[in-house]
Amino acid sequence: MTAAFSTLDEVRDILRALPESDAKSFDAAAARNVQLTKPPGALGRLEDLAIWYAGWRGVATPKIEAPQIIVFAGNHGIAAQGVSAFPAEVTAQMVLNFQHGGAAINQLAATFGAKLDVHALTLEQPTADFTQAPAMSEAEVIDALRTGWQAVDETADVLIVGEMGIGNTTCAAALAAACFGGAPADWVGRGTGVDDAGLAIKQRVVAEGLARHATAHDGLEKLRCLGGREVAAMAGAILRARLLRIPVLLDGFICCAAAGSLMHTAPDALAHCVAGHLSAEGSHDRLLHALGKEPLLSLGLRLGEASGAALSLGVLQGAVACLSGMATFAEAGVAAG
Amino acid sequence: MTAAFSTLDEVRDILRALPESDAKSFDAAAARNVQLTKPPGALGRLEDLAIWYAGWRGVATPKIEAPQIIVFAGNHGIAAQGVSAFPAEVTAQMVLNFQHGGAAINQLAATFGAKLDVHALTLEQPTADFTQAPAMSEAEVIDALRTGWQAVDETADVLIVGEMGIGNTTCAAALAAACFGGAPADWVGRGTGVDDAGLAIKQRVVAEGLARHATAHDGLEKLRCLGGREVAAMAGAILRARLLRIPVLLDGFICCAAAGSLMHTAPDALAHCVAGHLSAEGSHDRLLHALGKEPLLSLGLRLGEASGAALSLGVLQGAVACLSGMATFAEAGVAAG
Repeated sequence: MTAAFSTLDEVRDILRALPESDAKSFDAAAARNVQLTKPPGALGRLEDLAIWYAGWRGVATPKIEAPQIIVFAGNHGIAAQGVSAFPAEVTAQMVLNFQHGGAAINQLAATFGAKLDVHALTLEQPTADFTQAPAMSEAEVIDALRTGWQAVDETADVLIVGEMGIGNTTCAAALAAACFGGAPADWVGRGTGVDDAGLAIKQRVVAEGLARHATAHDGLEKLRCLGGREVAAMAGAILRARLLRIPVLLDGFICCAAAGSLMHTAPDALAHCVAGHLSAEGSHDRLLHALGKEPLLSLGLRLGEASGAALSLGVLQGAVACLSGMATFAEAGVAAG
Repeated sequence: MTAAFSTLDEVRDILRALPESDAKSFDAAAARNVQLTKPPGALGRLEDLAIWYAGWRGVATPKIEAPQIIVFAGNHGIAAQGVSAFPAEVTAQMVLNFQHGGAAINQLAATFGAKLDVHALTLEQPTADFTQAPAMSEAEVIDALRTGWQAVDETADVLIVGEMGIGNTTCAAALAAACFGGAPADWVGRGTGVDDAGLAIKQRVVAEGLARHATAHDGLEKLRCLGGREVAAMAGAILRARLLRIPVLLDGFICCAAAGSLMHTAPDALAHCVAGHLSAEGSHDRLLHALGKEPLLSLGLRLGEASGAALSLGVLQGAVACLSGMATFAEAGVAAG
């Protein structure tokens, strides 16, 4: 489909009029939950998770039948400054690996029965080095947002977005710092595994980017100046999911930085999102705190490419299956205590 | 098959000669792991988990195709003392619910593709009240251990055991205290949801049980005196899995107390086990610490019936799929950094 916007102001208009969760389905699911054959609260976070899902899907007893995972790939001008342990060519090589089924996300998507789509965003043309100029023109960031928007399958019932892009933990750190404050050192981590010298380069690059783009006035403008194409595409997909009431499981640091650019523009923008996991990438905990999200999993992953969120899909599937499939005390003839 | 023991001493003999993980497969899996298309360590705990699994299965690139979940149910003499928020009849009612597919574990087993078996252990005949006498005679505990032993499917490639038994958080607290020391208050929690008066009863019952059976000299004897039939069955199944080199995902407090009785008898008895989750039941964290196990999940579940471990099966499935299915850097033509 054609995207509903062609300027950032039109995206801002969309963010001002977001649809909400369906209160009736939410309440019906919550009422059902207390009648299920278990002690009250005994399924812990699964209970709230399933009720939240029911609200967004507008069904008291939902099913998960069509999870979609989308991996977006992009290249970054700042990669030339030595911010990564890997060369920029790896982005395109990994896209081929995704297409051939050899990456972690391919195995995880298959494990949890999710469709996996991969979108490479003009890898041959990296964004501008944000220490020198805005990473993207308005036309470029709109293109990337539209790629994400259009990549969402309208029939999906859960969305997970992930990324691949050498240099993108640096751009995510800059974007997070711009949105939520703090020093570069608060947000910069080791990414794919830089040494101390690499870490110092990342911090300098982030500091220079923040100084150059200090006047960027909202999350979308910060996204244009400091983000990357795959980061903007994730934001576009998360926004589209909101309009379609498709719940989203957020992946790690870069995905959450993309989400943060929406939240900075519209505080309620992420109500349809749950944090899939806590990444081991430096400051993901700080970023989740800024987003007000408690992660479902914490297993030390720091891979990106949607891997942590894909793993959390199993938790959501289990939660929803319990809500919709369990018998009530009355149905099962069990004494309710 | 017929169980390999008919006395507790014969069980002790088995515990003295346990098979170990296959070092060659473990090493081959670890060597493969470092060649996979991801930064070193980027899959966090999934990496060690998959390598551990490969070692126990004796295959460098294992597959999970036949997970088995077994729920054992038993009734407890101490239930008559008012240690639970639910009446003892609920044990049998919930067994029917398992058989009819209405419980949480039915939905979780289906979600993760596991076979679910349910064994009710002479529910009409509760164990003795352990404040008055040993919970079981040697013949009774052997029967229960054999039920667990024989319930394990030799073709399973992961085992999860869980339980249902009104009163069994009290018996598990007594067993854990007997095995690992500490005061009753350190081990007693609210179970299905007792109030403060119920909690005080639980602590008194545990204290009386510990005093009466202070001379029980090892984990198996403590299991006989303070445990329950479903608890002993879980121990029997976990032991059988070890002999079959079937990796086990441990469930919550009661499952871990059963496992603890094996470990107290033979310190290495749980090398084939991983903690599936941290339960919200009072002192499960203390018990996991005593077992030396770090949980995969922590989602506030406190239901038992194998639910938390079943949820962690998704994590193990994802981990093993990555190890066995990902391309190496050489295969994918990706620069290794």
